Amino acid sequence: MFEQLDHIALAVPDLDKAIDNWKELTGAMLSHREFVESQNTHVAFLSLAGFRIELIAPGGPESTVAKYLEKRGPGLHHIALKCADGQSALNELAEKGARLINETLRPGAEQTMVGFVHPASLGGVLVEIVEHP
Amino acid sequence: MFEQLDHIALAVPDLDKAIDNWKELTGAMLSHREFVESQNTHVAFLSLAGFRIELIAPGGPESTVAKYLEKRGPGLHHIALKCADGQSALNELAEKGARLINETLRPGAEQTMVGFVHPASLGGVLVEIVEHP
Repeated sequence: MFEQLDHIALAVPDLDKAIDNWKELTGAMLSHREFVESQNTHVAFLSLAGFRIELIAPGGPESTVAKYLEKRGPGLHHIALKCADGQSALNELAEKGARLINETLRPGAEQTMVGFVHPASLGGVLVEIVEHP
Repeated sequence: MFEQLDHIALAVPDLDKAIDNWKELTGAMLSHREFVESQNTHVAFLSLAGFRIELIAPGGPESTVAKYLEKRGPGLHHIALKCADGQSALNELAEKGARLINETLRPGAEQTMVGFVHPASLGGVLVEIVEHP
């Protein structure tokens, strides 16, 4: 069902500062940057040691990430699993009893289609299903 | 400095339940299970889609993971980066201004040597440096 880890996502208050920190300390490389309108977030993807880190910063105080930061502080936000067929993966998870946040895929960053599984289903971790174009 | 992502670690209150959930919902495979005496934690490693998930449960109410769960609830706890020379990686991070929790490596699960970088240095994420035997 899952092809590979797509990325590990971190919620940060200041995107530029977080990018600089990760680049300077770990040698991570910035590969992509985007404003995701549907979620009102600024995101950046970093490449590091064969995997990808997504940094997510709020686009404004009403962004869900702003609320997340207020409640939990900066840090690990979700992990994303890459699937060839994201909708089938969501359907299979639902059939197995997982609680879904999104019943159907919706647009994500990098022209992907994504859907989220509720943290309650997987030990408190928010899991994103990602289908690349 | 970093060879690859070693694992993503999740803090969970009940190890068996979390193992079963991940296995049933995602098809993850249990690869290793251990009591880590130095940290008073029960840990399990799962293989999923080419990466590894570590589940960490407290060995008792005084375990730091028990305190973490009390404060933050279950969920993403840290990410671990594999290094051929863990001590050099810690030294290099300190030279670049990172705040370390462990100045020197200490024993971790699976006969590894590990050291932690303070979350404040990397956007709120606890990062573990891991050297395998």
